[in-house]
Amino acid sequence: MATHKLLLLPGDGIGPEVMREVEKIVGWFRKRGVGFETETDLVGGSAYDAHGAAISEAAMDRAQAADAVLFGAVGGPKWDGVPYAVRPEAGLLRLRKDLGLFANLRPAICYPALADASSLKREVVEGLDIMIVRELTGGVYFGEPKEIVTLEDGSQRAVDTQVYHTHEVERIARVAFDLAKKRRNKVSSAEKFNVMKTGVFWRQVVTRIHKNEFSDVQLEHVLADNCAMQLVRYPKQFDVIVTDNLFGDILSDIAAMLTGSLGMLPSASLGAEDPATGKRKALYEPVHGSAPDIAGRGLANPIAMIGSFGMALRYSFGLLDEADRLDKAIASVLASGTRTKDIAGPGMNAVGTADIGDAIVKEL
Amino acid sequence: MATHKLLLLPGDGIGPEVMREVEKIVGWFRKRGVGFETETDLVGGSAYDAHGAAISEAAMDRAQAADAVLFGAVGGPKWDGVPYAVRPEAGLLRLRKDLGLFANLRPAICYPALADASSLKREVVEGLDIMIVRELTGGVYFGEPKEIVTLEDGSQRAVDTQVYHTHEVERIARVAFDLAKKRRNKVSSAEKFNVMKTGVFWRQVVTRIHKNEFSDVQLEHVLADNCAMQLVRYPKQFDVIVTDNLFGDILSDIAAMLTGSLGMLPSASLGAEDPATGKRKALYEPVHGSAPDIAGRGLANPIAMIGSFGMALRYSFGLLDEADRLDKAIASVLASGTRTKDIAGPGMNAVGTADIGDAIVKEL
Ligand SMILES: CC(C)[C@H](C(=O)O)[C@@H](O)C(=O)O
Ligand SMILES: CC(C)[C@H](C(=O)O)[C@@H](O)C(=O)O
Repeated sequence: MATHKLLLLPGDGIGPEVMREVEKIVGWFRKRGVGFETETDLVGGSAYDAHGAAISEAAMDRAQAADAVLFGAVGGPKWDGVPYAVRPEAGLLRLRKDLGLFANLRPAICYPALADASSLKREVVEGLDIMIVRELTGGVYFGEPKEIVTLEDGSQRAVDTQVYHTHEVERIARVAFDLAKKRRNKVSSAEKFNVMKTGVFWRQVVTRIHKNEFSDVQLEHVLADNCAMQLVRYPKQFDVIVTDNLFGDILSDIAAMLTGSLGMLPSASLGAEDPATGKRKALYEPVHGSAPDIAGRGLANPIAMIGSFGMALRYSFGLLDEADRLDKAIASVLASGTRTKDIAGPGMNAVGTADIGDAIVKEL
Repeated sequence: MATHKLLLLPGDGIGPEVMREVEKIVGWFRKRGVGFETETDLVGGSAYDAHGAAISEAAMDRAQAADAVLFGAVGGPKWDGVPYAVRPEAGLLRLRKDLGLFANLRPAICYPALADASSLKREVVEGLDIMIVRELTGGVYFGEPKEIVTLEDGSQRAVDTQVYHTHEVERIARVAFDLAKKRRNKVSSAEKFNVMKTGVFWRQVVTRIHKNEFSDVQLEHVLADNCAMQLVRYPKQFDVIVTDNLFGDILSDIAAMLTGSLGMLPSASLGAEDPATGKRKALYEPVHGSAPDIAGRGLANPIAMIGSFGMALRYSFGLLDEADRLDKAIASVLASGTRTKDIAGPGMNAVGTADIGDAIVKEL
């Protein structure tokens, strides 16, 4: 039987707490005969504290060798002052770049039972099911020059560069259209073609891929600022949204916040398929951050992290039955009213991080 | 008595309709002895159709000579295919750049009577009063290189460049802190210092200006993606938000959408004060766009445009009593239930664009 190699990178803040719950789930599947091999390593501020870098070379090697990386969260005020090159986020950005994880899938789902937790009106978000496809290895995150220079008169100039190449836009567009075909068959492509050349270019390439390869999918182009507005006004108009790295960062956070379930939302970052092995590199992480304010107190909701493992079952290992089983267990636990504080309804008794993991294992 | 020179640039879509209502208000003040001189010119798609450019040199000269520019809206599907350099938005961008209008003030106010029009829960937005201060002449909108190049292998590369200089961040920070002092004394500065060098730089300069000149104002730094989230989750935590050109574009649109009153929100774009005359260049425009879908049908809400004239009375002409009088007239008309369709409550009879202008004049 195949063994699936998992690298666990819990990171900082609530990362380790929520990862511990995933380990319970992995343990349960292992006992039932699914072959998982896990290793754990440091990333982010905790890696900086240990090695002076946001991820060590040894951890990078392990990530390259793993079938999937499970990532917790990085960052916190403790490291706000560290040099730019070794700040916690650099570990995550290096993983994305070096593993070639260009496609970031961020589902934003509003669970009916949690619709009241949203700041939006119930009717606006109930049943919401959007998939944001964010380009993750290009754009302003990685373009050069990226620098702060001191000029002759002593003043300074800071520069970032947004760069996109044809193949980068082509491949992310294909991911979006492919996903849409399995969903409601609609793609909204967001950019600022009215002020950015990368926006003009993005629109051109997406239009061409659509015309040549996916003309049966509905495509609309939307300005990124308008997309943000429409997400707030009437989010159910969207099915799949495809956008660049920076707009994707913001738009996916808005979409996540609409659902009232930030602690519930998983994400997958996928590389290209290796033509020889049919495998692709992958990293799975919750949409929420490291939440330093509640770290270490057993309050964090581990469902986004556990759901990220569920995405790994589905996208990396093809274990669809196991993924369904896990999703169902999560849904039953939620329905039974066993919830952490962030999603507990009025009159419900909030439980701790570990209770959720235990309840899901029991449900399995 | 002083004469105030106004240049009216109605633009495209609903721009001309809403500008017509402002002209009624200007006319009323003129009859009461306030010296206004108005000229009108083309901008955007309508200027392209007439001159092949999004704004003519003659119109630019008039804008330079005016005490204030009133701007409607530009763009529409009709011009989606025109060359990048002469697209409708280029007219607006040139006005901003050539007049040096670096400070864009976008208030987001939720009128209690309209709180139910928001997609957010009433308690989340009722009484909301945020001021977004957006840098308007720098960043990725204007940085070079900005190009699409074809490479040797036939593929293409698109580039945009985000650039900020010390003085650009300093002056917009000062505008934000000055405004906060007259409000609730809090500034939230939004950037992505965790991935962008311009974000690192922005944070450094804002921190220095705060420490040296405004240490009595409360300052917080917030990541732009988190700011977008927080605007949706709990917007009343903000007072003044200061941010760069691109983040400001998106964050101000989110803030505007929260209020449920997009057709109500004015904005001001201001230049530096001329030390000799004490005057500053200024352009006033509604936050909403050209809304081609409802253009020409008398449905548009002219209040954002009329409110923009109100901001001109206040910021450009120092006519504070007149501005208060206009604000009160707008409030009475709203309270009386005379509203356009976008903000009419259930059971209310929606009126047309011209009815609102007439009602405000009557109220004055
Ligand atoms: C932690 C940070 C570098 C990251 C990003 O900006 O991409 C985060 O906000 C995200 O969305 O995954
Ligand atoms: C019309 C467009 C160029 C403009 C911008 O992106 O600045 C608009 O969205 C705005 O916010 O004023």
